Amino acid sequence: IFSPVLTDSPTEEIEVLALLPQNNSFLFSQSRVAPAIRYAQDRLRADHPGFHFNIHFEDSDQVNHALFALADRSCDRKPDLILGPVREYEAAGVVRLASHWHIPVISAGALATAFRDKQSEYSQLTRIAPSYVKMAEIFSAMFEHFTWRSALLLYEDDRRDRDCYFTLEGVHHLMDHYDMEVETIHQEPTFKYEDIFKTNLDMEVVIMCAGADRIREIMLAAHRRQLTNGSNMFFNVDLFNASSYGNGSWRRGDEFDDEARQAYASLNTVTLLRTVKPEYENFSMEMQRSTEELGLYGCDDCGNVNMFVEGFHDALVLYASALDECMKSGCTKKNGTEITSRMWNRTIEGIAGQVSIDANGDRVGDFSLMAMTNVETGSYEVVANYFGKNKSFQLLPALRSDHFTLKRRQEVPEKEKEVENPSC
Amino acid sequence: IFSPVLTDSPTEEIEVLALLPQNNSFLFSQSRVAPAIRYAQDRLRADHPGFHFNIHFEDSDQVNHALFALADRSCDRKPDLILGPVREYEAAGVVRLASHWHIPVISAGALATAFRDKQSEYSQLTRIAPSYVKMAEIFSAMFEHFTWRSALLLYEDDRRDRDCYFTLEGVHHLMDHYDMEVETIHQEPTFKYEDIFKTNLDMEVVIMCAGADRIREIMLAAHRRQLTNGSNMFFNVDLFNASSYGNGSWRRGDEFDDEARQAYASLNTVTLLRTVKPEYENFSMEMQRSTEELGLYGCDDCGNVNMFVEGFHDALVLYASALDECMKSGCTKKNGTEITSRMWNRTIEGIAGQVSIDANGDRVGDFSLMAMTNVETGSYEVVANYFGKNKSFQLLPALRSDHFTLKRRQEVPEKEKEVENPSC
Repeated sequence: IFSPVLTDSPTEEIEVLALLPQNNSFLFSQSRVAPAIRYAQDRLRADHPGFHFNIHFEDSDQVNHALFALADRSCDRKPDLILGPVREYEAAGVVRLASHWHIPVISAGALATAFRDKQSEYSQLTRIAPSYVKMAEIFSAMFEHFTWRSALLLYEDDRRDRDCYFTLEGVHHLMDHYDMEVETIHQEPTFKYEDIFKTNLDMEVVIMCAGADRIREIMLAAHRRQLTNGSNMFFNVDLFNASSYGNGSWRRGDEFDDEARQAYASLNTVTLLRTVKPEYENFSMEMQRSTEELGLYGCDDCGNVNMFVEGFHDALVLYASALDECMKSGCTKKNGTEITSRMWNRTIEGIAGQVSIDANGDRVGDFSLMAMTNVETGSYEVVANYFGKNKSFQLLPALRSDHFTLKRRQEVPEKEKEVENPSC
Repeated sequence: IFSPVLTDSPTEEIEVLALLPQNNSFLFSQSRVAPAIRYAQDRLRADHPGFHFNIHFEDSDQVNHALFALADRSCDRKPDLILGPVREYEAAGVVRLASHWHIPVISAGALATAFRDKQSEYSQLTRIAPSYVKMAEIFSAMFEHFTWRSALLLYEDDRRDRDCYFTLEGVHHLMDHYDMEVETIHQEPTFKYEDIFKTNLDMEVVIMCAGADRIREIMLAAHRRQLTNGSNMFFNVDLFNASSYGNGSWRRGDEFDDEARQAYASLNTVTLLRTVKPEYENFSMEMQRSTEELGLYGCDDCGNVNMFVEGFHDALVLYASALDECMKSGCTKKNGTEITSRMWNRTIEGIAGQVSIDANGDRVGDFSLMAMTNVETGSYEVVANYFGKNKSFQLLPALRSDHFTLKRRQEVPEKEKEVENPSC
């Protein structure tokens, strides 16, 4: 009378193709992510004793390798699940082909705006980390709360992975009803930071995505032009503690430290909201042990656990529960579309806290806003949080509202302007 | 003693995958190109009786279909040759995967600058039509001949196939040592043509790629700002007689015809150089018959023969001679890299004239320059030709050199400028 599927849990071999770089210089290198996937595998044995995950890692160092790996492998036997790729240009090709073949793809990357389109080419993609558009929601909430009207988006373009380009593209996409200007920070040594503020003077809010040193140069330039006196708001996005993002630290031990500290009093940083639960300690220690064992080099600021490491752990958990549910209602691991749809509009208990996937298959994001709360010591605190699930913007006691109140410049009516400057 | 391969010509089955759109609205739709490929097949029977081409057409209407078709088909049996895709965004994925599998690809498209890189991801690509960078050579030759120094590149961006974007990208790439500004002509109805010339006034040459109606609006705007008095040179690129390119025709039967005719006296058009040889007549008639039989609609200005139709015909001829040569020296149709290399640095007799492929696998291009030679009637003539093989720029008797002589504006030295306008 009882279905044997429910009682005996016969073994189900699940072929997983993980497309991550072999090169250790990434936050999401194979060597960093693999321990998290194995950790999830071990944990899943209790809940899903019948699931055997056969995980094959393929290199995705070069932009097309991941796609080739998928095309090559799939002739013999198509994978049941694909994890990764993270980088946008790699992910695009892989997710398209996987979607064509109805293979679920879960990535802690592919954060760019284009991947939102699940109607056609990215139909099988589930994003287990909050996309850049989700990150943009905290800006949208702030603009509404503080009644700001215009923004200058400043990004550094490495013309390779283009993380910062895609980051601010999310803001531009979500907030296109505001007055926005976009400017690139060029990587040439001849780039003049002062020039940024020669034009664009009437943009109230400056939202930046650039490396820490660039951010410091920009803030120093802004400070010297007296734009840090309350007439403008400055924001910096720092999502993965990667070197491509500025991390709010003004100190360099050089002659400009004091000036930088004063400038940074006007700089606020948007980061991922960190939650920690007791189980997380064990995971974090395990990850640390793994990276130490491997003697990983080449990525000083990668940390032991980051959004990608957590994300790929949770990816396997999410997939397992969707597959389990799917099989209980009679489908098989080959029903990719069905499994994908069961991963959407769902909340699971992830390694660091709850993971909610929205109806479009994208992780809901929680973010924090950090600001300098002690100008003497130059120290930062979280002053507000944004919770994506209920779209609430929560101010914390440390927030000084005058810090976020724009001192609007005197607006000169057109006619007076003409009179003021009759010679031109 | 004689090798049987040379004498008996045993049958060689050659699998060809042609990736072209089924939709008839393209110049390179399956229905237009197929008759040319069959024509080439018939002709090749005489020279290569052993070659049997099995041509499979797969749709490439949607951007990823071509790639999926290749990935899907290749599991059973990889094609020996791929023809197409034409459009850049489709071609990119297909050529990468084909190159990974060492399958020769010949396209009359993939004209964008990026496809020049044959060192890595596009290693198997042979381009049988002249790329946009080759087209740019005629501009380079003119700039040198007439000692022009700066250019404004104006393109219409359809944000789909982006032909005009890629066309002028070729100019920008080849001529990056000149002073260049780039501006997009937006497709919104609110776009103000006059605004184009509010800035960029010091660019001597205006090179445009846009639809015929846009070009007319721009020329009218330029004429009204008196920029058509010799202070600026205007060029228009019209490579495939497609509606995405302006074709130099000023007449609309509206109230602005007379003004437009005067404005167009300053407009010169770069086109492909047309050569016609006696055999071409038959080909052209055959193609016409085929399109009539099919009752093709939806492409008024496609003509019966165009660069793509000719190109794919010649592609088969080029491949057959390279394969033949390759087999005679002991390789097989599976030696894709070897066959590809034998298609490069080679000249064949194409259906419309000689086809020279350079050492990088790209077709050498010949172009014509057309200018209005009778302002009363508003009629155009070819006034110069550019031959890519020996990079020669040939002026024809119809060319009036004063027409191409820039009346440079009085250059005011910096100091005088300051004195002139003391109030600002």
